[in-house]
Amino acid sequence: MAPDIPKEQKAQVITADGVMTLKTIPVPTPGPQEILIHILYSGVCHTDLHALNNDWPLPRKTPLVGGHEGAGVVVAKGSLVASGQGVDVGDYVGIPWLNSTCHHCTFCMQAQEMLCSEAQLSGYTVDGSFQQYAVANASHVAKFPKDKGVELDAAAPILCAGLTVYTGLKQSEARPGQYVAIVGAGGGLGSLATQYAKAMGLHVIAIDGGPEKGESCKKLGAEVYVDYLKSKDLVADVKAATADGLGPHGVLLLAPMEKPFQQATGYVRSHGTVVCIGMPAGAKVSMPVFDTVVRMVQVKGSYVGNRQDMVEAIDFFLRGLVRAPVKVVGMSELGGVFDAMRENKVVGRYVLDTSR
Amino acid sequence: MAPDIPKEQKAQVITADGVMTLKTIPVPTPGPQEILIHILYSGVCHTDLHALNNDWPLPRKTPLVGGHEGAGVVVAKGSLVASGQGVDVGDYVGIPWLNSTCHHCTFCMQAQEMLCSEAQLSGYTVDGSFQQYAVANASHVAKFPKDKGVELDAAAPILCAGLTVYTGLKQSEARPGQYVAIVGAGGGLGSLATQYAKAMGLHVIAIDGGPEKGESCKKLGAEVYVDYLKSKDLVADVKAATADGLGPHGVLLLAPMEKPFQQATGYVRSHGTVVCIGMPAGAKVSMPVFDTVVRMVQVKGSYVGNRQDMVEAIDFFLRGLVRAPVKVVGMSELGGVFDAMRENKVVGRYVLDTSR
Amino acid sequence: MAPDIPKEQKAQVITADGVMTLKTIPVPTPGPQEILIHILYSGVCHTDLHALNNDWPLPRKTPLVGGHEGAGVVVAKGSLVASGQGVDVGDYVGIPWLNSTCHHCTFCMQAQEMLCSEAQLSGYTVDGSFQQYAVANASHVAKFPKDKGVELDAAAPILCAGLTVYTGLKQSEARPGQYVAIVGAGGGLGSLATQYAKAMGLHVIAIDGGPEKGESCKKLGAEVYVDYLKSKDLVADVKAATADGLGPHGVLLLAPMEKPFQQATGYVRSHGTVVCIGMPAGAKVSMPVFDTVVRMVQVKGSYVGNRQDMVEAIDFFLRGLVRAPVKVVGMSELGGVFDAMRENKVVGRYVLDTSR
Amino acid sequence: MAPDIPKEQKAQVITADGVMTLKTIPVPTPGPQEILIHILYSGVCHTDLHALNNDWPLPRKTPLVGGHEGAGVVVAKGSLVASGQGVDVGDYVGIPWLNSTCHHCTFCMQAQEMLCSEAQLSGYTVDGSFQQYAVANASHVAKFPKDKGVELDAAAPILCAGLTVYTGLKQSEARPGQYVAIVGAGGGLGSLATQYAKAMGLHVIAIDGGPEKGESCKKLGAEVYVDYLKSKDLVADVKAATADGLGPHGVLLLAPMEKPFQQATGYVRSHGTVVCIGMPAGAKVSMPVFDTVVRMVQVKGSYVGNRQDMVEAIDFFLRGLVRAPVKVVGMSELGGVFDAMRENKVVGRYVLDTSR
Repeated sequence: MAPDIPKEQKAQVITADGVMTLKTIPVPTPGPQEILIHILYSGVCHTDLHALNNDWPLPRKTPLVGGHEGAGVVVAKGSLVASGQGVDVGDYVGIPWLNSTCHHCTFCMQAQEMLCSEAQLSGYTVDGSFQQYAVANASHVAKFPKDKGVELDAAAPILCAGLTVYTGLKQSEARPGQYVAIVGAGGGLGSLATQYAKAMGLHVIAIDGGPEKGESCKKLGAEVYVDYLKSKDLVADVKAATADGLGPHGVLLLAPMEKPFQQATGYVRSHGTVVCIGMPAGAKVSMPVFDTVVRMVQVKGSYVGNRQDMVEAIDFFLRGLVRAPVKVVGMSELGGVFDAMRENKVVGRYVLDTSR
Repeated sequence: MAPDIPKEQKAQVITADGVMTLKTIPVPTPGPQEILIHILYSGVCHTDLHALNNDWPLPRKTPLVGGHEGAGVVVAKGSLVASGQGVDVGDYVGIPWLNSTCHHCTFCMQAQEMLCSEAQLSGYTVDGSFQQYAVANASHVAKFPKDKGVELDAAAPILCAGLTVYTGLKQSEARPGQYVAIVGAGGGLGSLATQYAKAMGLHVIAIDGGPEKGESCKKLGAEVYVDYLKSKDLVADVKAATADGLGPHGVLLLAPMEKPFQQATGYVRSHGTVVCIGMPAGAKVSMPVFDTVVRMVQVKGSYVGNRQDMVEAIDFFLRGLVRAPVKVVGMSELGGVFDAMRENKVVGRYVLDTSR
Repeated sequence: MAPDIPKEQKAQVITADGVMTLKTIPVPTPGPQEILIHILYSGVCHTDLHALNNDWPLPRKTPLVGGHEGAGVVVAKGSLVASGQGVDVGDYVGIPWLNSTCHHCTFCMQAQEMLCSEAQLSGYTVDGSFQQYAVANASHVAKFPKDKGVELDAAAPILCAGLTVYTGLKQSEARPGQYVAIVGAGGGLGSLATQYAKAMGLHVIAIDGGPEKGESCKKLGAEVYVDYLKSKDLVADVKAATADGLGPHGVLLLAPMEKPFQQATGYVRSHGTVVCIGMPAGAKVSMPVFDTVVRMVQVKGSYVGNRQDMVEAIDFFLRGLVRAPVKVVGMSELGGVFDAMRENKVVGRYVLDTSR
Repeated sequence: MAPDIPKEQKAQVITADGVMTLKTIPVPTPGPQEILIHILYSGVCHTDLHALNNDWPLPRKTPLVGGHEGAGVVVAKGSLVASGQGVDVGDYVGIPWLNSTCHHCTFCMQAQEMLCSEAQLSGYTVDGSFQQYAVANASHVAKFPKDKGVELDAAAPILCAGLTVYTGLKQSEARPGQYVAIVGAGGGLGSLATQYAKAMGLHVIAIDGGPEKGESCKKLGAEVYVDYLKSKDLVADVKAATADGLGPHGVLLLAPMEKPFQQATGYVRSHGTVVCIGMPAGAKVSMPVFDTVVRMVQVKGSYVGNRQDMVEAIDFFLRGLVRAPVKVVGMSELGGVFDAMRENKVVGRYVLDTSR
């Protein structure tokens, strides 16, 4: 009953010289706790460009197949993978950033596996989803219900972008009825964050630049749009966007720039939480001690999410409450997608169709 | 039955020209919701020096009677102060930094009254405890049991120093059995923090400079002492002080210097919390975004504490679990205490005896 | 500028013999920390019937003016009530169940004032809102914005019914995207709870009896309706209403019957929370120890809410997210409303117009 | 380098007819994710008697080797067990109640693996530690440091009894400085609970029967002892044991009787938490709805603990803060231990030496 698994496949491979080429390579074989997935679609994330550039303070595999938003169908599984756990042959699954973690360190034991020091990262320390067949750890893949006719191309960006902003919103500790400011609300992460926040009963203050982004933010559910290109006093404008003028309870920093990191502690409500998510190269968060203390401001980092966060992030997607603006192109066009990223020309999320 | 209340009293008064003089001034009269306290002892805090210097970004009263660690006896109360709430004539009470708050803003309604924008601050926006008779708000004073023979001179520093570090430890979210690093452990705040932390079941890593401070920290309960004057790699040394090498779960920043604010996020455990308490003039907290995100580090400010925190902080004192190293001098000697502070020569906590 | 305040007014007064009569009585005078409110509308709650019957294990005032969902306009205020706190003459306010609390006990200091042992209860230990002019404590009244054209008749039921279910939902600890079962979803409390839960991003499983209630529940946002009159296995049916079959994360018990209290621990998800809110006379919660332990089930009581909960509950109403099905009748018709309650014929919430 | 592993061993085996016999059976072989442990000591728990009696509503294996507090040395490991995770040959480990869980259900993903529906239970659904060589899942065993000269006989009871009460104390949500009442404080679980509570900075109110138990409770750190055999009003006496008379913040129910389950909600502080741990056969928790609601009381079950709880529970033991009163006997004497249990004659904890 198992599908025909070819011996060879197409993959975008980054070699030691830092060049990415579409190649034919062997289809890998899953280990006893792994599964083999026929990848149909794979989202492209800014992190993939960092992997190509090899410019992060984190060593990566070489040669490397990138990609960590891969959605597809299980075609084989290892000897120790139990049946009935949603990863049987034919099931729909997704490959996330966290390919595997150790399951027994102090972080894994507390459901904080994103902090596991032995974590393997898809498309970074192990081969990822920019190929037609990828292996993944059975207990870390995301699961999609097959019977609901899930569109796997639309689902792909949830695996990293969706998970990350959903978890960030939880980390903000903002409750339904409270305010959250989303910095970079008009971008790929931001548009998902706006939809999640609305579905979670939060008031959304969208912060970004330019009137087009303003329109799209409002369409997705933002109540107020603050255009940082026009605002003469961003701190005052964001505070004024809350009913009592005390500022938002939570702030999500998604923009790939350093400046918002310095501003956010100025407009967040006293006792509020600023969540750092985007990671502009070399950026620092900085805030005055006096104000931090007397206003009891809190700043924290949020990094992807754990496996339960993934289940929840996907559930919002399945219910139709969030949807990334997706542009599907062939896997062979990945180079061009990276070019567009480099030129900051990407609107929405590119998703690769691995069949072309 | 009420005690004889004099018409005049001695007080240390700061006048418009920034000079502090021991003067004879009228004994104030409590309003309907206030009480009049015969101050016996008053601790001297670094904040009092800031009030004298008028060098904080927060306007203060002029002329001003400073002091916000005043312990004494109730001698009169306003018409609306109910009996039986622990502030009857003869009861032992303390005047804290938060002299009064509005009781009805969003922060007061959530027991975060330290964030109330209408808060009156003892010895800063209203006259404080460097006088023999002071008024205070009945619902904000701290209460000491009379029947337990409380030593009010030893109790005075709990009202601000004790409260502040106890609340900071709660804010660190460290649980019994976990590690907390205390930066500035050898100072006045630090020695109290070490004792509170130990009584709360925490492992204490004391950080300060010089061998004498190391000895006193260990005597008070610190398990490890890291001397920043000797350490060649402070981050490594602090991490090594924890059993699994992952660093302390919480960090309390009490030292009046900026550098520790930059270091703490380096050695705090992933998902751990750095609590800013000390407020060196003009200092900034700064940390790399990348590390903050992928290690999910949290930085927050903690400011005094609420009224329930005060009850709890005092309870630890009453049980003999914490005790500030107190040096009692006459109120007339306050100028000399400030001189010693300016020269950084204060070890332990000075407490003024208002009778001399 | 103050409005004309009459000397006398109409009120529904319960006398020592347990009879309620519409009488002319003096308009009361506010104390220094109180305000006088011209009540326009007052909701009628089951508690008011208990006050009339005097059948609760809690002593009440005699003679008594009942009512604790009174909405109206401030017409006078005491000498110690600050201006600008939302209770100036002309402001719209509401009288809640908690007329005043002590502000200084351990519960008040922790924003749990509903547990204050000195709490005064509107329409129970002090006169309430079944009169044209009522006094209330300035720091406990609910505040409505005047400029938003609030309909005070629709707002009245939020003051107790809305607050209670909103707080209960918070106490359930269910997060957006999780499931909550509402027992008695078709009743007055239940219809508000369903709307709040939906606005908070929760999946709602409505439990009640009969097809009409089912229809109204679904209209208000319930995803599934379980009819206990038809269900052959309620526990199984409620569990089946959740996507993974493990049962709802939270349960709200609003029905005035004992049986649901015994069932809820059976279908709540392991580690989930059952919140008791309704108080059927003499009822007990009971559950098997074995199951409670190995499934780590949690049962808790939730009682009205604190002042911040009130602000939040009203905010949902002001945004148009919740609305009680209100029937306005003259205050003179209160006796008939109680008759309908006794016969269990009340659908939705009765609100009295005090002008007739 | 591997130790000599015999082919056969001694074990206490329960057969289908419900009889337990000391037999010679084969030494089992670990699967790929398992390890083989040479058991040196094994604690005897009340649960083992239930396994023998087969009187719980939970099916067990037959024939069965009981025991789930086994401490010993790793002698072999499966092919997929990574090195360096503390389970290499020669390491000291413990077999807990949770022999394995699925790692991928919603509970496992949230670090609530005790709720995993596929959990295997040592000495219940799989063979346990009443044998000389036992297999266990590598990622679930408890780890002891070899270099600290751990006494494995004293350590054994921590694996279940210690873990259970430590987790229960965390579940009580009582913070350092608050009060916890321990019902059954004089028993095996209770004496450990008293020591943990003290080490966590809690005030302990011990509840049990008879003067001997009172003495031992006080020796272990209880501040007050309430003798239920003597008390005329247990609720009043327990409340009076707290400084403000409002009752303890948390209650741990460890006694194997039903009555305390009905009393605890009477004396727990308003907004406090009653934690059910002991499981008397057929017992129910029951409490009046009215009181539960207006006092906002919380009742919850706590079941063993997760793997991180285990690490923490052991850490308190390693630091010398808790120690069970242990009586070591030969494994061949297990029948006699069960007899003593049946007659309720056990004081402290029996630990079997598997070598005799």
